[in-house]
Amino acid sequence: MVGYKFMGKAHAHAYRDIPFYFDSDATPVLQGIAGRDEAGVREAARRYGFASYETDWRRLIDRQDIDVIDIVTPNNAHAEIAIAAATAGKHVVCEKPLAMTLDEARQMLTAAQAQGVVHMLCHNYRFAPAVQFAKRLIQEGRLGRIYHVRAQYLQDWIMDPSFPLVWRLRKEVTGSGALGDIAAHILDLARFLVGEFREIVSAVETFIEERPLGEMTSGLNASLSPNIEGNQTGQVDVDDATAFLAHFENGALGVFEATRFAAGNRNGNRFEINGEKGSIRWSLEDMNWLEVYFTDDEPGLQGFRRVNCTEEVHPYAGAYWPAGHIIGYEHTFINLFKELMDGIANRRDVEPNFEDGVKNQAVLAAVERSAMSRQWVRVAEM
Amino acid sequence: MVGYKFMGKAHAHAYRDIPFYFDSDATPVLQGIAGRDEAGVREAARRYGFASYETDWRRLIDRQDIDVIDIVTPNNAHAEIAIAAATAGKHVVCEKPLAMTLDEARQMLTAAQAQGVVHMLCHNYRFAPAVQFAKRLIQEGRLGRIYHVRAQYLQDWIMDPSFPLVWRLRKEVTGSGALGDIAAHILDLARFLVGEFREIVSAVETFIEERPLGEMTSGLNASLSPNIEGNQTGQVDVDDATAFLAHFENGALGVFEATRFAAGNRNGNRFEINGEKGSIRWSLEDMNWLEVYFTDDEPGLQGFRRVNCTEEVHPYAGAYWPAGHIIGYEHTFINLFKELMDGIANRRDVEPNFEDGVKNQAVLAAVERSAMSRQWVRVAEM
Amino acid sequence: MVGYKFMGKAHAHAYRDIPFYFDSDATPVLQGIAGRDEAGVREAARRYGFASYETDWRRLIDRQDIDVIDIVTPNNAHAEIAIAAATAGKHVVCEKPLAMTLDEARQMLTAAQAQGVVHMLCHNYRFAPAVQFAKRLIQEGRLGRIYHVRAQYLQDWIMDPSFPLVWRLRKEVTGSGALGDIAAHILDLARFLVGEFREIVSAVETFIEERPLGEMTSGLNASLSPNIEGNQTGQVDVDDATAFLAHFENGALGVFEATRFAAGNRNGNRFEINGEKGSIRWSLEDMNWLEVYFTDDEPGLQGFRRVNCTEEVHPYAGAYWPAGHIIGYEHTFINLFKELMDGIANRRDVEPNFEDGVKNQAVLAAVERSAMSRQWVRVAEM
Amino acid sequence: MVGYKFMGKAHAHAYRDIPFYFDSDATPVLQGIAGRDEAGVREAARRYGFASYETDWRRLIDRQDIDVIDIVTPNNAHAEIAIAAATAGKHVVCEKPLAMTLDEARQMLTAAQAQGVVHMLCHNYRFAPAVQFAKRLIQEGRLGRIYHVRAQYLQDWIMDPSFPLVWRLRKEVTGSGALGDIAAHILDLARFLVGEFREIVSAVETFIEERPLGEMTSGLNASLSPNIEGNQTGQVDVDDATAFLAHFENGALGVFEATRFAAGNRNGNRFEINGEKGSIRWSLEDMNWLEVYFTDDEPGLQGFRRVNCTEEVHPYAGAYWPAGHIIGYEHTFINLFKELMDGIANRRDVEPNFEDGVKNQAVLAAVERSAMSRQWVRVAEM
Repeated sequence: MVGYKFMGKAHAHAYRDIPFYFDSDATPVLQGIAGRDEAGVREAARRYGFASYETDWRRLIDRQDIDVIDIVTPNNAHAEIAIAAATAGKHVVCEKPLAMTLDEARQMLTAAQAQGVVHMLCHNYRFAPAVQFAKRLIQEGRLGRIYHVRAQYLQDWIMDPSFPLVWRLRKEVTGSGALGDIAAHILDLARFLVGEFREIVSAVETFIEERPLGEMTSGLNASLSPNIEGNQTGQVDVDDATAFLAHFENGALGVFEATRFAAGNRNGNRFEINGEKGSIRWSLEDMNWLEVYFTDDEPGLQGFRRVNCTEEVHPYAGAYWPAGHIIGYEHTFINLFKELMDGIANRRDVEPNFEDGVKNQAVLAAVERSAMSRQWVRVAEM
Repeated sequence: MVGYKFMGKAHAHAYRDIPFYFDSDATPVLQGIAGRDEAGVREAARRYGFASYETDWRRLIDRQDIDVIDIVTPNNAHAEIAIAAATAGKHVVCEKPLAMTLDEARQMLTAAQAQGVVHMLCHNYRFAPAVQFAKRLIQEGRLGRIYHVRAQYLQDWIMDPSFPLVWRLRKEVTGSGALGDIAAHILDLARFLVGEFREIVSAVETFIEERPLGEMTSGLNASLSPNIEGNQTGQVDVDDATAFLAHFENGALGVFEATRFAAGNRNGNRFEINGEKGSIRWSLEDMNWLEVYFTDDEPGLQGFRRVNCTEEVHPYAGAYWPAGHIIGYEHTFINLFKELMDGIANRRDVEPNFEDGVKNQAVLAAVERSAMSRQWVRVAEM
Repeated sequence: MVGYKFMGKAHAHAYRDIPFYFDSDATPVLQGIAGRDEAGVREAARRYGFASYETDWRRLIDRQDIDVIDIVTPNNAHAEIAIAAATAGKHVVCEKPLAMTLDEARQMLTAAQAQGVVHMLCHNYRFAPAVQFAKRLIQEGRLGRIYHVRAQYLQDWIMDPSFPLVWRLRKEVTGSGALGDIAAHILDLARFLVGEFREIVSAVETFIEERPLGEMTSGLNASLSPNIEGNQTGQVDVDDATAFLAHFENGALGVFEATRFAAGNRNGNRFEINGEKGSIRWSLEDMNWLEVYFTDDEPGLQGFRRVNCTEEVHPYAGAYWPAGHIIGYEHTFINLFKELMDGIANRRDVEPNFEDGVKNQAVLAAVERSAMSRQWVRVAEM
Repeated sequence: MVGYKFMGKAHAHAYRDIPFYFDSDATPVLQGIAGRDEAGVREAARRYGFASYETDWRRLIDRQDIDVIDIVTPNNAHAEIAIAAATAGKHVVCEKPLAMTLDEARQMLTAAQAQGVVHMLCHNYRFAPAVQFAKRLIQEGRLGRIYHVRAQYLQDWIMDPSFPLVWRLRKEVTGSGALGDIAAHILDLARFLVGEFREIVSAVETFIEERPLGEMTSGLNASLSPNIEGNQTGQVDVDDATAFLAHFENGALGVFEATRFAAGNRNGNRFEINGEKGSIRWSLEDMNWLEVYFTDDEPGLQGFRRVNCTEEVHPYAGAYWPAGHIIGYEHTFINLFKELMDGIANRRDVEPNFEDGVKNQAVLAAVERSAMSRQWVRVAEM
């Protein structure tokens, strides 16, 4: 694993838990972790249970005892590491967004396909049981033709103007702001559930344009508490908020919004999908529940059902606890890596993978281009 | 009153109830009602308590015993009646959307202003106590600078392809579909709460393009149950759904969506507004509640408060029942016409009025133009 | 009508609205209203639209132009007025609780039955469309055998120790506290929906035992804002809270709680009923919604449906507005009096009536006896 | 660890995760697990990561390499194992309810105290961050004097009459039904948050009195899917549902209900507490949220706040993920055993412990006695 902070923690935990909950076809072994700061990576190795650590990720790729490289670095390092790893014949897992640009993403896919390695993109929210169940309902035609998808990813963690210019707010490190960080999640969910985007028109905003310099605290267990470094400020060059309208290939109309300025919404990843036979609603903060409506329910008894997706019939839920005993954020990763393990053991494609990464990146690029050109942009032309 | 169906019922009831609940400065007297179908209008007069009826609305305008003309006809008759009424020196109330076109709307405003009559536009949802209270919070600066408004008006009453081509689906009568009927409401609420629109980009959809001919049943108490007339079908020439992004004059970013194809949403008029100091959420189907969040609430105790706006401190609520005894849809009209009565008695402007109608119509026109041109459209250029 | 404050307002409004919404078999005419304070009753007559007023209720009963006596006085006057009215051959409607004691209630029933007049008890919450729909589901066997009913009526309007000793807190005027005022509602709903009580064990509490003297403000539109009168205090001799367990005749287990000390619950009248085939939940503050669960819903799709009971298929709802346009507290009275009018026109029994009043009073008496004796009490032995 | 099914899985997982999330003062090592069925316990040892297994729990107690005995067997084995373990100087952890009888519970406490070992009772729901935060609010006096606690634990997993007579339905193995299994949880939460019970009156029900013989499937990951064994049936001799009223030592009034017959409630552990200064509400199925109301919130802005207890300021939450990333059922155990580890390392009492077990058992015994005697029972007299 390359990187060890918030995402590193989530990934490491998931690998540890897979054999506890699942009989996967391969069992993850935490062989090595890499990071530039030796004290930090040593502590991470100890805490997360890695057998060794390296201060240069290239050393991990050179090692023969390592089969899979998992990339949890900031976005600007994804491509180089992924391409090196794939070229070395390692299976590759990468945090989202796949790359800084569509071009990079395509090179990563090409490298992975050239070597025939398994590649996976960590859009973990696909793996909430409620989301998987939504997918099943849609695939089975239970909603019929899809008319609408509306999705929001609302956060509020940078609203304070004194919150510093952390790496997630610097374009050279992160590529974009709310767009690549959280809009990426909702568009991936839309692609997963509804289908491919045809064209897009977007608007972006940066509400606070200058911030003190600083970074997150480095403790492994730390939440997003930032440190201010001195009195200097810097320019915010990424979006605080992004919204876009979309037409899908199948005729659905999409309305999307991602922002870090929605006070009171800590992690409000939500969607509603309306089809000719019914509708579904989901919200990450209540991720165990799926609201489902069917137009053919008996008159007088039509209403959204609030289903607790913790039953054996719900995807992945049977691996955990009896009905009504909810699971949390980290289980989305356990489920995701369970698929990875099975894919690796059977040399089988998994989803979402770098192809999804390229398609997602094309949507992100279309959003960015539209924000500049103030025109509708066809995703296929990216 | 000209017209007597769904909206006529709502208006008539409100006039009757004003003196019961309020000490308004003028008291409405239901002098006359007009409609083309004599049986229908006679029955409406009897049921609603009008002293007389006419089969030609011009007769109402000619009568000296009538001071106010209230227009609840389909949209294509608004302008002619309103201009005639204002020209005759009557105060004029008109259902929304004000007109078929921005031009018509401007003529209506000019006519009303020329005669100095009181003019009002029936955007009743402004008058839910929770919405009025939201307005007060925003005006007092409790949310600070506004960053976001997202609003949806989701309905599902025409999803069945066998639902007929009623007047609300025919452009010549109604002007537009979801746009003028329900998007008009959410953009008016946004103007009321957030401020003026600067520019817009939109997308519209008509999902079902051909429908059987037919109309609503004509009973006064009838809900929206349609009658099919024979086997003929007609072309739907209005939008089933409209979505648009907007930049506001004050820098807020808006995301709007109105549709009649959102299964399970009977009357889902909802908005959320995010400001630098807090957020609010409202939903028409739970119209007595306002959800409010403040960023300066104590750490650990920050969350949306669900406030039942039925206390004396909440606008209009003190006129009704003790706290916790909710009111409904019809009370929005009682409150609205209470303002009208006070305005007429004191020859004072009321809101929303035809100026709001013109501004709303400019936004509607911008949405339509953007849907055609696939460009961002400045509202001021309409 | 005898009395004219909070309940008088609700009743008067309902009578006025019946002909607007319904084709009832009789039409109410507001002939006269009585109250001791002449200024107050004169103003009430004007505001509510009564043709005349009296300062002695006996005068109303003597009048030949009056067919129905509606009693909205404090509880200690119910019996005398009702018996006098029935004896004079007037139909009688009475606010709940029917009487101060079970004995009084029986005398009232006897008087009404002896003269063959129509008698009705104003348990208005039965007449929320969602509650009526719940009744229909249960009657049709959709929940199967009933196992559980749990109901709470939670309020918080007297929690402030400086809130005065208004008449609703004085035993001589009101008979009991939370018990007769609000527990009466939930036990009536339980009898309506589940069946008769067999036995009861109860606990009562008075948390604040001394309060300043004072009364509600007398304005007709006033909410429950109290006036303090001087520095004197008095003893609270009624219950602030009452809870009881119950076995029903049909084997269901009941858990009931009524309190005026549940901070944050303005008007929290709520119940959940669990049967072998399903469950329902209802809450007055969200009175248009009924939550419904069926055990035979498809696996994976089992969850409470949130049904907005505003469709034509829902009882009474078709008289009002299209689906999704909610109604409020006052409509429960309109529906109730619609039944009264039909009953009177057809000389037909209506429900709930004085028989229900006697049965409810027997439950109230059993609760009181159990609170004293600290024993289970059989309702049939009261 | 003795036992290895549902609870064994939850405990084992928690021990594994402690060093990942916490810097506890002692680190758990999974040395051995015991179970009677060799195949089952061998598989459990492998899956859960225990270093060894035994088929006789006494062997675990004899081993010098084991410091802590964790008892997750059915209830009828708790006392014997706990006393043997404590007598051997091992620290003891025991699933709830502590014992079959109050007498057993007292012997267990005596044994643990005599040896000075650390003892803990697994009421894991105390350790949801929202519940811990509720405790803090109450301790700080933020709710003031407590007036009410109402708590329900509603499940529905045995409603089907063909569900077999599993061990949780047999008195000799389990002691009681809903009472010891789930009422135990809500009374423990009430003791934790509100204080000690003074007296109780109860009602119990067994709705389905005969069931086919059978047991749960034995797979480690299995949910509560039962196997039927042949055609034989047996008598259900435990309660399906239990309800009780309670007076607390501090004057609060309690209303409690636990049932396995509340259709649609998979795991509905819920409470609301009302105090003079505010109220709180919690529900296990939405365990990350705490609803909080304060009476001194600004007029017009009073309402329950829905707080997502995932921030660093919330107890234990900082060990996991950033705000808004929810945790689940299993984390309650991680938090609980974190306290155990710290207690053992520092030879310090932890809570809840066997003293709580004795007090809880006294309440359970009072409930049972009251159900028999149909009298109020003082808990102190048990």
